[in-house]
Amino acid sequence: MLSDIEIAQQNVMEPITTIADNCGIKPEELEQYGHYKAKVSLDIFNRLKDRPDGKLVLVTAITPTPAGEGKSTTSIGLGQALNKIGKNAIIALREPSLGPVFGIKGGAAGGGYAQVVPMEDINLHFTGDMHAITAANNLLAAMIDNHVHQGNELRIDVRQVSWRRVMDMNDRALRHVTVGLGGKVCGFPREDGFMITVASEIMAILCLATSLEDLKRRFGNIVIGCNLDGDPVYVHQLGCEGAMAMLMKDAIKPNLVQTLEHTPAIVHGGPFANIAHGCNSILATKLALKLGDIVITEAGFGADLGAEKFLDIKCHYGDIYPDAVVLVATIRALKMHGGVAKKDLGIENPKAVGEGFVNLAKQVENMRAFGLPVLVAINKFATDTPAEIDMLLQKCDSYGVDVTLNECWEKGGAGGIDMAKQVAAMVEGTDIKPVMMYDVNEPIPTKIEKVVQRIYGGNGVEFTPNAKKQIQQLEAWGLDKLPVCMAKTQYSLSDDPTLLGAPKDFTITVQDVRVANGAGFIVCQTSNIMVMPGLPKKPAALAMDVTEDGKITGLF
Amino acid sequence: MLSDIEIAQQNVMEPITTIADNCGIKPEELEQYGHYKAKVSLDIFNRLKDRPDGKLVLVTAITPTPAGEGKSTTSIGLGQALNKIGKNAIIALREPSLGPVFGIKGGAAGGGYAQVVPMEDINLHFTGDMHAITAANNLLAAMIDNHVHQGNELRIDVRQVSWRRVMDMNDRALRHVTVGLGGKVCGFPREDGFMITVASEIMAILCLATSLEDLKRRFGNIVIGCNLDGDPVYVHQLGCEGAMAMLMKDAIKPNLVQTLEHTPAIVHGGPFANIAHGCNSILATKLALKLGDIVITEAGFGADLGAEKFLDIKCHYGDIYPDAVVLVATIRALKMHGGVAKKDLGIENPKAVGEGFVNLAKQVENMRAFGLPVLVAINKFATDTPAEIDMLLQKCDSYGVDVTLNECWEKGGAGGIDMAKQVAAMVEGTDIKPVMMYDVNEPIPTKIEKVVQRIYGGNGVEFTPNAKKQIQQLEAWGLDKLPVCMAKTQYSLSDDPTLLGAPKDFTITVQDVRVANGAGFIVCQTSNIMVMPGLPKKPAALAMDVTEDGKITGLF
Repeated sequence: MLSDIEIAQQNVMEPITTIADNCGIKPEELEQYGHYKAKVSLDIFNRLKDRPDGKLVLVTAITPTPAGEGKSTTSIGLGQALNKIGKNAIIALREPSLGPVFGIKGGAAGGGYAQVVPMEDINLHFTGDMHAITAANNLLAAMIDNHVHQGNELRIDVRQVSWRRVMDMNDRALRHVTVGLGGKVCGFPREDGFMITVASEIMAILCLATSLEDLKRRFGNIVIGCNLDGDPVYVHQLGCEGAMAMLMKDAIKPNLVQTLEHTPAIVHGGPFANIAHGCNSILATKLALKLGDIVITEAGFGADLGAEKFLDIKCHYGDIYPDAVVLVATIRALKMHGGVAKKDLGIENPKAVGEGFVNLAKQVENMRAFGLPVLVAINKFATDTPAEIDMLLQKCDSYGVDVTLNECWEKGGAGGIDMAKQVAAMVEGTDIKPVMMYDVNEPIPTKIEKVVQRIYGGNGVEFTPNAKKQIQQLEAWGLDKLPVCMAKTQYSLSDDPTLLGAPKDFTITVQDVRVANGAGFIVCQTSNIMVMPGLPKKPAALAMDVTEDGKITGLF
Repeated sequence: MLSDIEIAQQNVMEPITTIADNCGIKPEELEQYGHYKAKVSLDIFNRLKDRPDGKLVLVTAITPTPAGEGKSTTSIGLGQALNKIGKNAIIALREPSLGPVFGIKGGAAGGGYAQVVPMEDINLHFTGDMHAITAANNLLAAMIDNHVHQGNELRIDVRQVSWRRVMDMNDRALRHVTVGLGGKVCGFPREDGFMITVASEIMAILCLATSLEDLKRRFGNIVIGCNLDGDPVYVHQLGCEGAMAMLMKDAIKPNLVQTLEHTPAIVHGGPFANIAHGCNSILATKLALKLGDIVITEAGFGADLGAEKFLDIKCHYGDIYPDAVVLVATIRALKMHGGVAKKDLGIENPKAVGEGFVNLAKQVENMRAFGLPVLVAINKFATDTPAEIDMLLQKCDSYGVDVTLNECWEKGGAGGIDMAKQVAAMVEGTDIKPVMMYDVNEPIPTKIEKVVQRIYGGNGVEFTPNAKKQIQQLEAWGLDKLPVCMAKTQYSLSDDPTLLGAPKDFTITVQDVRVANGAGFIVCQTSNIMVMPGLPKKPAALAMDVTEDGKITGLF
């Protein structure tokens, strides 16, 4: 089989004007970025305000292996397949970060015959959203240090500035730095650190804002650290939320691209799935709902992490709710949950598939706790054997959950016809009542406990002394009445990555509790989350090249 | 009179497709970025290779005041005026840097009724060129630190890494930093510093590259520092020039916009005018020459600095040469050169205008040394009095140089009709032989001496012990056969900013000599050049805002 980039480069794309026309976007609402990418003006919401929303399908997954289980590929394949059976389906996805492209991870635009294109552009600068976020984030950082340098009227405590600079690059040397060296004309020295751009609160805000006004208001609410009295300092006190919003005036507009089969795809926003909520922007999803009859979107990591945050954070702020869930499972991951070592995952083992089913069952149960109908979608790999697949089908049947085999990676939309038919039937005439796992007005510990008990299957929560102190501070500041954004390992339902399957009788330990007051959630970390990756011994960058005619090689 | 942004926002632009069509760019060669900006595919050079080039007019200036003398405004106004008299004129300009927009300086897209539009976009993210440069620069930085971290096969000396990270922001806290703190997993600690993006050698390379292949070759030639033996380390040894070029595959394409009067303007690249050569890209100028019959372009600072480097560096690498020079002068600057204090520049003083004429005469002489016909263009201010202007006209007449009064700032193209007619006549049937001030194969001191004696009017050059050592090193490395890029104050023909007029009997002291081997020049600094600006007490950012419908205020 060809590589992803070879498949993408062989594909003959439609002009983006054709894609836009096909899904009802008017020429004056379309801002082209080259021939195959475009931004869509927010004016379109006014024109389409009376059109009823389409049905929303959330693609999530079982607890994944480190390689991931193919949620993007399944989402794209499902969109393609729905169009193949005559449905007006649109896909809404996250946009990838540039930095990791040069390391090991590579790009993020689906795979095989289920990709969004132009994959090179989507994985590189795309329409500049990441760069706008970097600029807005770093303007704020410069304004903070400049405020201190120019007299520090707000009495910002340089030891307690929590706002960090960002760069869209895997660069470990920037994790911990000292800035402001060089003497009096260079400001006050202090410790600082860079995060990768997608970890910025600016990204989370972009993805939760419902308008440019809302974006600006959220920027103003960001807490950048404390003053010398220990009180929070807000961006609106510094007065640069207008300039920051100005930098984001184009970035806030959703991006339109297409799949290999010309299905419209709205690819916009991509926050971290641990310290943030891990879904594409609310505006992208809302736009897709105005344009399509069925909208496919995804959430990061497994259902316990990504789908929970999609439902309790994104749906909460966006006033949206899915009509159905597609839960992606792979034979490999089930075998892992069944106790098979990583090196043995290629060996046939139907028994382990059966034993690993407990994880899938728990994630199905989690989605049902939100009142949502679930379809399990097996993302088929060439190494899967009929006996293993039979075992999974049989387990799904006895558990009482619908299941489909999806071969979209290998066959594109044609590999997902059954999945598409089942999804189309599931969303027909649904009337789902939104559910949240907690009330945002409950105390922080209660909100976390409810997620742990109802979704993770644990007994309760412990808090380190540090976390307790942080919670008290947020309560004292009155900044605790927000959804919680859980940051824990994606490799287990618990906070211990070695506990596979569906662990029981465990507690979660919360170590760090911080408010992302602009985004509007409280980040609860159960371990240190890496916010600036590094490059490996042989970075992917070494194999990358571009020919005189602009053709790229070595990107994957 | 309205502010620049008010004039720009009142203007009704033509769709960029119309502008492109008017100047002979085919739809498939145009890559739109929204409705009013576009990139032009380099494929166009192949199609137009047999079309004879248009005439090239270089806009330069007398030794400026800190406010600048209006070269961009004059260039844009001249382009507009030439079109008004029926000529097919195109403008090629530098693109502005984002960082300074938030400080004091504001944007850089002309002024009054001689602006390029959309001014907000041009001053903000434009088509993403700056961000691509930032990414390519910082990818290289990350690759260097990663190489050291992963075993340091090339034995890079972390004390002698000259490649710095960049950010497109005015951020003094980043001038001097330590990176790689945090222990073993975060790399080796070392001193580092950030420059503003436009100071990156990547920007200079973008502006001197004649193709994507040439860009990549130049990236490979960059010297990033020394190894532990004191030998230079090149990017091609690190192997990431392909990935860097890939990041620049779109940035290398010239950007098309329009003036307020719909004259096509190619705005592309904007390197520092001190540590780099300060002109828009060769590709932009070459594209304009293929599309227009008369092309107006500019060079940074006064003629001694900007025009000299335009002619000795850009023309050398681009195989182009101007047909005429427009030398911008203001009554204010002439009075300053005539000895008037800054606070008294608003007071009528024809005598000082006459005395300050020595500077203008010297700059005219400099351009004639390059074999170029000169037209002096007085950029008229409302405060200029008839007596002052008469004095200047009379001085020009007795010196024997053509002169014109230009009111483009106030009146647009209509304010530059006489200028346009004179320029059109000057370039008619010219056949100028290119001249360089030195031979690139001469020793570095000889090249500098020739510039100092022939252009600055000084006696000679002194070198600090440090500079002598650096020159010896470049000679030992065989990296000395390149043009020199002089970095000195723009406020005097000498290296002393207090020596106004046309100083004599001075020497220049060269303090620092470094090779920009990818760009292909040797930077000779006569003082410390600030490569990372700071924000002022009241940054312009505080007044900036954007309304819900995307309208920007506070940008200037």
